[in-house]
Amino acid sequence: MDEFMQAAIAEARQGLAEGGIPIGSVIVHDGRIIGRGHNRRVQQGSAILHGEMDAFENAGRQPASVYREAVLYTTLSPCSMCSGAILLYGIRRVIVGENRTFMGEEELLRSRGVAVEVLQDESCIALMRDFIAARPELWNEDIGV
Amino acid sequence: MDEFMQAAIAEARQGLAEGGIPIGSVIVHDGRIIGRGHNRRVQQGSAILHGEMDAFENAGRQPASVYREAVLYTTLSPCSMCSGAILLYGIRRVIVGENRTFMGEEELLRSRGVAVEVLQDESCIALMRDFIAARPELWNEDIGV
Repeated sequence: MDEFMQAAIAEARQGLAEGGIPIGSVIVHDGRIIGRGHNRRVQQGSAILHGEMDAFENAGRQPASVYREAVLYTTLSPCSMCSGAILLYGIRRVIVGENRTFMGEEELLRSRGVAVEVLQDESCIALMRDFIAARPELWNEDIGV
Repeated sequence: MDEFMQAAIAEARQGLAEGGIPIGSVIVHDGRIIGRGHNRRVQQGSAILHGEMDAFENAGRQPASVYREAVLYTTLSPCSMCSGAILLYGIRRVIVGENRTFMGEEELLRSRGVAVEVLQDESCIALMRDFIAARPELWNEDIGV
């Protein structure tokens, strides 16, 4: 696994250590991480700071040309909100840790020309599987099931 | 116009008064505003706080059942990110001030069963038309054109 997915997993683990939902993300431009984040629903009572959104927020107001050349890494298949943010900013490549525990809007992304690669990484799967088993009510609240 | 779109317009005007992008939104449940907000790109340097996202953030961690029964009002047709948040939380009805200055993901929302009503309100159109004419670079950055 490359260093960027490792950084996304490190974000997810940090979120777990904070008592939060273990999903992490990094945004990479020109070989460098320009934004990183993790889900902050529990920590900040946030309805919108999923891991990917937190990474966008931390990347901040980048020129459109930067986001268009960026690659987004996320430990879990991106939900409709995060996929919408990916489309808004014209991100063209998304690397997904796994989509076994949750299948996001990968088809929508592909239909709009985004390259989506799914690693099915065992450590990403284990993080979510263990979390969902331990805190099902929190997961269902987050993803709105 | 009903009081809720008036509240969304008041949010948009507040954003303009702060030097920001004049788009506002409110989320209504059971006849009461549970979240209100406006675009905060300029004010907070935020890449994700569009008007609708700010309203979600201020509504906070509501039970899924609340969001499913809520109505979202927004002065401008919702972009892909905000539409994705609407889908994530299962909002079933969206009232849009106008879609003349920007057409968001209304077709995607309708294809997923969301009722989208567009008012083509002249005050909403004027707010955006005047803003885009005055600050085209800011608008293009925000919407990623």
